[in-house]
Amino acid sequence: MSNPQLHPDIEETAAKIASMEIRGAATIAAAAATALRTQAIECTAATPQDFESTLRAAARRLHTTRPTAVSLPNALRYVLRRMAGETVGTLRAGVINAADEFVDRLDRAQADLGAVGANRLRDGDTVMTHCHSTDALACIETAVDQGKSISAIVKETRPRNQGHITARELREMGVDVTLIVDSAARRYLNAVDHVIVGADSIAADGSVINKIGTSGLAVNARDRGTPVMAAAQTIKLHPDTLTGHTVEIEMRDEREVIDSETRDSIGDITVDNPAFDVTPPRYVDAIITERGQFPPESIVTLMRELFGESVDEPWEESKREKDV
Amino acid sequence: MSNPQLHPDIEETAAKIASMEIRGAATIAAAAATALRTQAIECTAATPQDFESTLRAAARRLHTTRPTAVSLPNALRYVLRRMAGETVGTLRAGVINAADEFVDRLDRAQADLGAVGANRLRDGDTVMTHCHSTDALACIETAVDQGKSISAIVKETRPRNQGHITARELREMGVDVTLIVDSAARRYLNAVDHVIVGADSIAADGSVINKIGTSGLAVNARDRGTPVMAAAQTIKLHPDTLTGHTVEIEMRDEREVIDSETRDSIGDITVDNPAFDVTPPRYVDAIITERGQFPPESIVTLMRELFGESVDEPWEESKREKDV
Amino acid sequence: MSNPQLHPDIEETAAKIASMEIRGAATIAAAAATALRTQAIECTAATPQDFESTLRAAARRLHTTRPTAVSLPNALRYVLRRMAGETVGTLRAGVINAADEFVDRLDRAQADLGAVGANRLRDGDTVMTHCHSTDALACIETAVDQGKSISAIVKETRPRNQGHITARELREMGVDVTLIVDSAARRYLNAVDHVIVGADSIAADGSVINKIGTSGLAVNARDRGTPVMAAAQTIKLHPDTLTGHTVEIEMRDEREVIDSETRDSIGDITVDNPAFDVTPPRYVDAIITERGQFPPESIVTLMRELFGESVDEPWEESKREKDV
Amino acid sequence: MSNPQLHPDIEETAAKIASMEIRGAATIAAAAATALRTQAIECTAATPQDFESTLRAAARRLHTTRPTAVSLPNALRYVLRRMAGETVGTLRAGVINAADEFVDRLDRAQADLGAVGANRLRDGDTVMTHCHSTDALACIETAVDQGKSISAIVKETRPRNQGHITARELREMGVDVTLIVDSAARRYLNAVDHVIVGADSIAADGSVINKIGTSGLAVNARDRGTPVMAAAQTIKLHPDTLTGHTVEIEMRDEREVIDSETRDSIGDITVDNPAFDVTPPRYVDAIITERGQFPPESIVTLMRELFGESVDEPWEESKREKDV
Amino acid sequence: MSNPQLHPDIEETAAKIASMEIRGAATIAAAAATALRTQAIECTAATPQDFESTLRAAARRLHTTRPTAVSLPNALRYVLRRMAGETVGTLRAGVINAADEFVDRLDRAQADLGAVGANRLRDGDTVMTHCHSTDALACIETAVDQGKSISAIVKETRPRNQGHITARELREMGVDVTLIVDSAARRYLNAVDHVIVGADSIAADGSVINKIGTSGLAVNARDRGTPVMAAAQTIKLHPDTLTGHTVEIEMRDEREVIDSETRDSIGDITVDNPAFDVTPPRYVDAIITERGQFPPESIVTLMRELFGESVDEPWEESKREKDV
Amino acid sequence: MSNPQLHPDIEETAAKIASMEIRGAATIAAAAATALRTQAIECTAATPQDFESTLRAAARRLHTTRPTAVSLPNALRYVLRRMAGETVGTLRAGVINAADEFVDRLDRAQADLGAVGANRLRDGDTVMTHCHSTDALACIETAVDQGKSISAIVKETRPRNQGHITARELREMGVDVTLIVDSAARRYLNAVDHVIVGADSIAADGSVINKIGTSGLAVNARDRGTPVMAAAQTIKLHPDTLTGHTVEIEMRDEREVIDSETRDSIGDITVDNPAFDVTPPRYVDAIITERGQFPPESIVTLMRELFGESVDEPWEESKREKDV
Repeated sequence: MSNPQLHPDIEETAAKIASMEIRGAATIAAAAATALRTQAIECTAATPQDFESTLRAAARRLHTTRPTAVSLPNALRYVLRRMAGETVGTLRAGVINAADEFVDRLDRAQADLGAVGANRLRDGDTVMTHCHSTDALACIETAVDQGKSISAIVKETRPRNQGHITARELREMGVDVTLIVDSAARRYLNAVDHVIVGADSIAADGSVINKIGTSGLAVNARDRGTPVMAAAQTIKLHPDTLTGHTVEIEMRDEREVIDSETRDSIGDITVDNPAFDVTPPRYVDAIITERGQFPPESIVTLMRELFGESVDEPWEESKREKDV
Repeated sequence: MSNPQLHPDIEETAAKIASMEIRGAATIAAAAATALRTQAIECTAATPQDFESTLRAAARRLHTTRPTAVSLPNALRYVLRRMAGETVGTLRAGVINAADEFVDRLDRAQADLGAVGANRLRDGDTVMTHCHSTDALACIETAVDQGKSISAIVKETRPRNQGHITARELREMGVDVTLIVDSAARRYLNAVDHVIVGADSIAADGSVINKIGTSGLAVNARDRGTPVMAAAQTIKLHPDTLTGHTVEIEMRDEREVIDSETRDSIGDITVDNPAFDVTPPRYVDAIITERGQFPPESIVTLMRELFGESVDEPWEESKREKDV
Repeated sequence: MSNPQLHPDIEETAAKIASMEIRGAATIAAAAATALRTQAIECTAATPQDFESTLRAAARRLHTTRPTAVSLPNALRYVLRRMAGETVGTLRAGVINAADEFVDRLDRAQADLGAVGANRLRDGDTVMTHCHSTDALACIETAVDQGKSISAIVKETRPRNQGHITARELREMGVDVTLIVDSAARRYLNAVDHVIVGADSIAADGSVINKIGTSGLAVNARDRGTPVMAAAQTIKLHPDTLTGHTVEIEMRDEREVIDSETRDSIGDITVDNPAFDVTPPRYVDAIITERGQFPPESIVTLMRELFGESVDEPWEESKREKDV
Repeated sequence: MSNPQLHPDIEETAAKIASMEIRGAATIAAAAATALRTQAIECTAATPQDFESTLRAAARRLHTTRPTAVSLPNALRYVLRRMAGETVGTLRAGVINAADEFVDRLDRAQADLGAVGANRLRDGDTVMTHCHSTDALACIETAVDQGKSISAIVKETRPRNQGHITARELREMGVDVTLIVDSAARRYLNAVDHVIVGADSIAADGSVINKIGTSGLAVNARDRGTPVMAAAQTIKLHPDTLTGHTVEIEMRDEREVIDSETRDSIGDITVDNPAFDVTPPRYVDAIITERGQFPPESIVTLMRELFGESVDEPWEESKREKDV
Repeated sequence: MSNPQLHPDIEETAAKIASMEIRGAATIAAAAATALRTQAIECTAATPQDFESTLRAAARRLHTTRPTAVSLPNALRYVLRRMAGETVGTLRAGVINAADEFVDRLDRAQADLGAVGANRLRDGDTVMTHCHSTDALACIETAVDQGKSISAIVKETRPRNQGHITARELREMGVDVTLIVDSAARRYLNAVDHVIVGADSIAADGSVINKIGTSGLAVNARDRGTPVMAAAQTIKLHPDTLTGHTVEIEMRDEREVIDSETRDSIGDITVDNPAFDVTPPRYVDAIITERGQFPPESIVTLMRELFGESVDEPWEESKREKDV
Repeated sequence: MSNPQLHPDIEETAAKIASMEIRGAATIAAAAATALRTQAIECTAATPQDFESTLRAAARRLHTTRPTAVSLPNALRYVLRRMAGETVGTLRAGVINAADEFVDRLDRAQADLGAVGANRLRDGDTVMTHCHSTDALACIETAVDQGKSISAIVKETRPRNQGHITARELREMGVDVTLIVDSAARRYLNAVDHVIVGADSIAADGSVINKIGTSGLAVNARDRGTPVMAAAQTIKLHPDTLTGHTVEIEMRDEREVIDSETRDSIGDITVDNPAFDVTPPRYVDAIITERGQFPPESIVTLMRELFGESVDEPWEESKREKDV
């Protein structure tokens, strides 16, 4: 299939996503939906087939930039699924409306999610955080805005110490913060009312993929009787996992773990730096989304409602059609 | 009670222990026993009572230098318990023999312990380490010396990164080393045959007091079905815990966790830096000592054999005598 | 907003609910729906807006009587959600039909639930009960009616001994009853085939809120390998929990626990008397409703089907509308 | 009600199912749907009522042959539920279309299921199997077809040694096979990445009914940290369990366990030979279907989507109608 | 064997123990030892054989009064084991010394035990109690005497409400007390630092036999991560359990559970009132004795030290001798 | 060292042990002790050194026959440890007395063990057995002799079906027997009061080495709340494990698992047939010996009492002596 002419905004957005100038799950998703909207408005295709082909090509281009970022295909899927109709006009309107709706929902999603998470917190509660998650922080901030007094035990989250960012933002909300090394978590869990983390993505089997260290923390929280909640907008739900696909874990640069000089002084060793790990659903009490809270074992129901069952990506030629 | 004249070696040894010029559980214990030996040889006391008083005073002086270091009172107790007899001569001989025996045993202890631990390892095993423990490393080294091929997953062990030292020493033994951040441990546990750690001290209820992070690791190891062994010479057994005393956990300087500048930039937070944590016996499969291996629930038996039941320290006036 | 004129039946029903003359989850729900039906029939509003306002005001009045009784808002919500149309006539018909349907379903619900629960029981089974629940008893009664021989271990359920009522009703069904104190439950669990309890309410995270002691019993049942079922009509499903709200636990009068004289003789103590506790879903095997059985982790799906996602109560002005 | 005239194909298919000439969940289901299709084509009923009666009678006849085979009523239900309309023509078309659709889906189901299960496997994984399940094998075969190298530990599965069939088929796929007795499973679980089993049926409470030994294996897998997946086409989902019915466990001939001579030489003993056991959902990580993967606690949602809530079988006169 | 002439004190003490005028484990034990002492002093036997026979007969008489009270045979055994020698004089001296030593140790035991238990408590701790145990209270009182601030959650302990006594005595120590029904325990466990109970007896397999409800509490404490200690003087260690004997659980009068009138109004039910239950060692963290603390799995070592291995009671004719 | 002249009985006994004409832990042990006794009586050594050398050589010869049979070295060790004295006469007497004592104890051991195990059983209990163990059966037989009614669920124990022998012997005792395949165990565990197994050997870390399948059964028993006891005479305690040695698991002939023809028909597979597995102590409630019952975590104490700490075998030249 020849590649149709794409609008310059598509290319520009793709470039910025690839270079991480545009980053963060929600920001990427909004940028992708907006770029498709522009493509739809400016698209000069004469036939519905050409219009659809062009939009699919635009989506493919955007998708290639960060194939493992789950919010990106979710944005593309949301918009293309609503591209339906008999004429270019109705197709275009479908895309524009879908993009507007998607961005509008995205705008409200973190606030709605924050309200759901905040409702689980009580005045006087102590939370423990891992890494830095704006979704998790939205829950705490909403609780504070409701007048609840919240304290936090903040894990520094090696190797990149995102806990420092979390600590700063919690302080700005007026939350009492105690910073600890990751290894000290178990010692503090009995005094913690909730472990609250974000998610890189959520799988259909209820697993939570999140910053390395989440699963070990969750196992200890269960052992101590402390509930765990994972705050994740629905753009974090991973559609591929509905059909059994597993989420690839990124291995990052070893220099995040140890500087070259120290490493060389140690000798010939391997340094492994996995970015994420997988927490099985039995160690998580609730997944907090802008659509409400769910036991992890039930998130598959929301995923099917949002994504359907199809394994085909809407920006690809359908496999079955191709088989014909 | 007036303080008898102490030999200069007592004061010098005490000063070096206090200043940490003499450090490490075994080194401190040997120095203390040797100082008591010198005191016994040089003691000019005319009566058995005076001799005993002098030796007890020497022990007290040494004990005050690091009251929480468990190997120090264990050395003093070992020597003074064997000071018995009717004459100064027999008392002196008792102390000298006890000190010699103690140092002799100490010399052999790590090798014997290493042999016990090594017997649990098989050719081709992968071990996971936490912090840096010469007792734990002795087990691995002996296994390597027996011709077994051993690989290691080494946790860096924040905040002081003693894992780097462990990694270097394992490399020198010819062990394949993979260094990871502490949070990555759970991800690797299914590929690990043994978690092997040292101990700061062992309590009579079977708890293992060791570097912060040990308990969280042990809970995850149990969850993954990976056995945990703690290597600890008997000088690490904590006699006070026989009578229910708990081990005080040292809180260390926060600058080990975060540098002042970063901390100031975050705002007004607390930084907690506990040095150790407590692993309950149900998460530990074996305690490895130079006297053999023990389930943690049975270590109390060895402690009673070594220390008896008495709550009185032999360098103190007996409480009951004082009550009279 | 001025308060529209309400029908006297609304006020009378409200008064009876408040005074607990009308009590019990199903009875309250039926009374509330019926009162709304009367209000709809007798309502003289001239415009659709006025009709809706009046019905909402009636619902608000009823709701204020027992704000924590979950069946009451569920009845109001059920009826008001079906108030839709362009004219007073269609609105009125909607309310009447909804109220009739609601009451009709309520009439059948316990029998249907009882059949579902009975299907889980086998001839010769022994059940253990806690407190007094007509839903739980319906399961047992239906099983007995099916010709199954059932025995029961009945916990007395301090402080109010509702177990005595349960014992009496089981005897009337012909069930063999052994009455025990609550503390004796674990001793009998190995001989029990099912723990069967009711519910005060069910939360979206799968938690079962029920009479104090349920959670401790469920933990022991899991430890002994005995399955636990919670019988709860869908009027017990708590819609607010979809958005993370937690269920407030009522603290009852201390005189239920200890008489004043005994208490005074003990001295200056606190007496806590929580009415309910929260059993996490992992200790419950099935929730039995008139709509079938559900693993607790899936009840959220039924709740979303029944209540939708909205956080707005249909008797309130919509928050978003108010923001405009 | 008099029995309408049935087409000879109904009787012939019924006879073959009863005699187990037609066997296997999918084969039975396809034959039943096809027989109903023939009945619909050839049915000479003059009125819609007669047509429906005839088709229901045909379904009843087929159903009586193996009342405990779950795929058979699922096929009948699928077809009869889509028999709707005002005329014989539309009713007939409904049945024909439904039968075609059912058989078509059945044809694709195992392949689709295999793709979902294969996605959970990684190159280099070792799986453990129990009994012989074409659904489970489809997952492994698809993975092998995707170029992944898979090894297998195959349990022999007493008393009928279906593990031998599994071993042979895995060898034919090129999988490395190690055969063990059932009792040896735990010893090998730490080296296994996935336990993968089939299912005889799946219950609405998330339980997996499968070959005797599955539950004991799953409990050990959880203890060792090894995930368990059950591969089951949706024709294995048991609709009766939605209303609390439990699945009857077949007790098979004792001569499968011990030959008569040996038994007689032992003396007067009982030999129990249950064919299946029940694995609670908490020991299973995922149910793999052709509709995607599900945590066992969520399979009820798919069952409700497929079967609705009704307790009435479509081939029976409705109970409520009969009560009138 | 004819029954030798016993001293009137033996009969009088026996009568008082039987009538429960003398009650409480320590009081019974002291009375029995003292009675044997009197018998030894006053015994007019001419030969060592007669002396021994008389003392054994006295012990048998005392033993028959409360054959299930473990402290009674422990006292008898302690005294008779030390009856050794060639002449009546040495035998008599042995008994007198043993009785004096036993009573002397008993006098100090609770204080020593209290010190051990108190050492496990920290300033600011909250404890939860079950039933009324002077050993458990000795731990708390000693902690308070050490200047530690302790709060208590006191379970009322149906059916006899011994929690009221506990509450009163804790108040007298200055402890803050919250009284709850037994069923409320789990709700409070996360705020509790130690569960502290007494023991009716301790078995060689590490089980703790204590007031009904202890085992259910301990299971919940483990689930919540709260440590459990059982305070038990060594007279509670049950020697028969060394040889596998189990401890008979007393079933008490049903009128402790329900008054006759209420019961009759319920109908024909059984009321079971077991006095004690058995907590397996895996739910208990430490047994606190006057000889120090022990993991329950190690208490067998102390029992063997105290009682030896013999299955023969010293007041019986040895089985092996009889076989001759 | 030259090999001294050995008595023909040594060689003959060695040959019979090697050929398995003499088999069974107790029979081997008795034969070895008796052979050493004969050697001592007939030994013509002129000096104590020669006598000792000869006896050690005899022990070495016997030891080489079955180096992994734990009862054999235990017998040799028992006898040689008691060979002490200054003259050939006292050495000889020491050996003879030790051998007599050993055989005498062995004769009584199973009966004593059976009494201990029987005390744990109650009238009406159901036990589950795995494999065939005369020690386990001694417990049941003694209980039956005490008049208790016992039923048994007997696992067939593939691959060699020793369960058939167990079933026959239990029938001969009058026990009701139900035979099942190994995989059916979990289904019956809730109706079982005790799992009772033997042991191939017991390790110092409390692990029970027994017939393959024991560990999987024990894990399921714990999950179901059913206690597990392992019956093992002290000749099964493995002294090498005191110093960390692990017990080598024998891999047996694959033809026990599958006949050659069937295997060839399957294709190129591996068949693994491990004879034993290792059950960690946390799944075993009690080890039953002739010296009483022990929690597995405490068996190390009995082992140290019996064997001491030394790693040197008494029939070897001491390593330390050799180092000189």
